[in-house]
Amino acid sequence: MIDKLMAKIKKLEAPIVVGLDPMLSYVPEYLKSRALEEFGETLEGAAEAIWQFNKAIVDACYDLIPAVKPQIAMYEQFGIPGMAAFKKTVDYCKSKDLVVIGDVKRGDIGSTSAAYAAGHLGKVLIGSKSCSGFDEDFVTVNPYLGTDGVKPFVDVCKEENKGIFLLVKTSNPSSGEFQDQMVNGKPLYELVGEKAAEWGEEVIGDCGYSAVGAVVGATYPEVGKALRRIMKKQLILVPGYGAQGGKAEDLVHYFHEDGLGAIVNSSRGIIAAYKNAAYSEKFSEENFADASRQAVLDMKEDILGALAHSGH
Amino acid sequence: MIDKLMAKIKKLEAPIVVGLDPMLSYVPEYLKSRALEEFGETLEGAAEAIWQFNKAIVDACYDLIPAVKPQIAMYEQFGIPGMAAFKKTVDYCKSKDLVVIGDVKRGDIGSTSAAYAAGHLGKVLIGSKSCSGFDEDFVTVNPYLGTDGVKPFVDVCKEENKGIFLLVKTSNPSSGEFQDQMVNGKPLYELVGEKAAEWGEEVIGDCGYSAVGAVVGATYPEVGKALRRIMKKQLILVPGYGAQGGKAEDLVHYFHEDGLGAIVNSSRGIIAAYKNAAYSEKFSEENFADASRQAVLDMKEDILGALAHSGH
Repeated sequence: MIDKLMAKIKKLEAPIVVGLDPMLSYVPEYLKSRALEEFGETLEGAAEAIWQFNKAIVDACYDLIPAVKPQIAMYEQFGIPGMAAFKKTVDYCKSKDLVVIGDVKRGDIGSTSAAYAAGHLGKVLIGSKSCSGFDEDFVTVNPYLGTDGVKPFVDVCKEENKGIFLLVKTSNPSSGEFQDQMVNGKPLYELVGEKAAEWGEEVIGDCGYSAVGAVVGATYPEVGKALRRIMKKQLILVPGYGAQGGKAEDLVHYFHEDGLGAIVNSSRGIIAAYKNAAYSEKFSEENFADASRQAVLDMKEDILGALAHSGH
Repeated sequence: MIDKLMAKIKKLEAPIVVGLDPMLSYVPEYLKSRALEEFGETLEGAAEAIWQFNKAIVDACYDLIPAVKPQIAMYEQFGIPGMAAFKKTVDYCKSKDLVVIGDVKRGDIGSTSAAYAAGHLGKVLIGSKSCSGFDEDFVTVNPYLGTDGVKPFVDVCKEENKGIFLLVKTSNPSSGEFQDQMVNGKPLYELVGEKAAEWGEEVIGDCGYSAVGAVVGATYPEVGKALRRIMKKQLILVPGYGAQGGKAEDLVHYFHEDGLGAIVNSSRGIIAAYKNAAYSEKFSEENFADASRQAVLDMKEDILGALAHSGH
C-alpha cells in the first residue's frame, strides 16, 4: 500500500491528503436541512448530512489527490449511525481508487492492539470465514504503550499490505508537554522517531519507503527537520497546514531532496473552503465542492511552489 | 459519577470491575453456533455471539460489582455490527445500574478530543436536539497529546457529571519504553501522574475523589506505590490482575489506608473463568456465567483478604 500511495503522489504531483473531518457546522445549510428533514434531528440525520457532504467533496476532488484522511472522531461523535457514515466514506473513497488513511489514533496493550489492527486494517476469522470490519488502507497509531502496542499493527501491515502512521510529534499547542521532554539529552519525540524507524525496517516497500510512516505536525518545522534526518524511510504525514497555522515554506524540510517523503494534510482549509473569504466570493454555498476543488489546486500549487523555490 | 462509583464500591465492598472484553474464542461453542446459525459467519453473527455472552455474564454478576469495563477494540474489530454490540452492552449494563467504563483510550488534538468526549460521554447538538452517541459513564483517555487533548474530556466530565481514567502507567510488558524514561530525574509516568492530579483538581466529587482518575497497571507494584503518593485524589483503575500476572498482595499499595482509592479490573479471569482449570471441573460450558459469578466472588475475597492482611 505504501508503494501505491507513493506512486499516486508521484503521478499526480500532489504530496497532499484531504482530511475528511466533517463538523456538522461545515455542512452547507441546504444539505443539512435536507438530511435532517428526511431522518429527523437525530444521529441518523447528522450521519446522512456528513456523508452527503463527504461524497460531494470526494466527487469534486478525487482525480487530483492521492489520498483522504477521515478523522474517525468526527463520525464517532454521532454514535453507530456516525460509524456507519465513516465506513460508507471509507468504501466510497476506495471505490474512487483513493488511498484511505483512517485517522483513528488507536493503540493499546498487545492483544487489544491486535483487535484494533484486525478491525481497521485486517480481517477477523468468524467460524470459517474471514471478514473485514472497517478496512482502511492506513491508520494512525498512538505509540505511548511501546513496542507490544505497535507490533500487532506492523504484523497486519505485513500480512495485508497495509500501512500505519505513528504519532511522533503532534501538531497541537500542548504536544510538547510530554513529547518534548528531554530524555538522555534528546527530546522524547526523537526517541519515538527512532523507534518508528526501527519498527518500520521489516516492512520497506519497493519504493524504498516503509509501511510504517510517522505523523509530524506542520506547526513545528524545526522538529520536522530533525525528524526527517532520523526517519529516512518514513513517509511523514503532516497535519497542521493551513487552518492550524503551518505554512508551505516551513514544510520543505519534511521532504527529501527529491521532493518526496512527506504528505501534507489539510482538513478544514479544503472541506470548508466555501466558508473562507478567499473562496466565498467566487463560490456559492451550493458550489461548496467546487470551492474545495479550487482549494486543493491552490494547496498543491502552494506546496509545489515552496518545494521548487527551495530547490527540492 | 465518581460519587456514584465510590458509593457502589463501598456498599458492595467490591473494589473491582469486570472487563467485558469478549474474544470470540471465549464464547462457549453452543452460544457461538447459535448466533452464527442465525446470522451466518458474518460480522453480525460475531456481534450477536459476543452480545449474548456479555448479557449472560452481566445477568449473573451485576449484583456483586459496581462497574464493568467493556474494551471497545473487541467490538470494533467486528465493524459496525460490533460497535452496535458495544452500544447494546453499554445500555444494558446501565439498565442494571452498573457504572460503565468505556475502555476506549481515545485522545487527539483539542477539537478532535472534543468530538470523542461528546460522542462517548456527552451530547452532540443536531439541529435543535441534543443527542447521545455512546453515553458511557467513564472512558479511558490517552494523555500523549497533552493538556489540549485532555481538557475537552474534563470539560464534558464537568458538564455531564461523567469521568475519565488517564493512562499513566499501562500494564503491558513494553509500557516502560516511553513511560519509564527519566525526565528531569523522574520517570515520565510520574510527570503524567502529576498532570492527572492537576487536571483533576477542578472536578473533585463530594466523595473527595476526582472525576479524573488514572490507569496504573497491576504488573508494576512499585510504580503503583509511587503514583498513589503523587495522585492522592485519583481513583486508580488497575488492569493486569490475574491473567496478566498481577497479584492481590501487590495491589495493596494502590489503595489508601482506608481501603479505598483503587478499583481492580479483571477481564479474561472473570469472563472466561469456565475455561480455567480452577472452575471447569465445577462448571460446565453451559454454566459459564455461573463460573464468572464464582470468579467474581473469589476475586473479591482475594483482594479484600490482601487488604485486611496488610492492615488496610
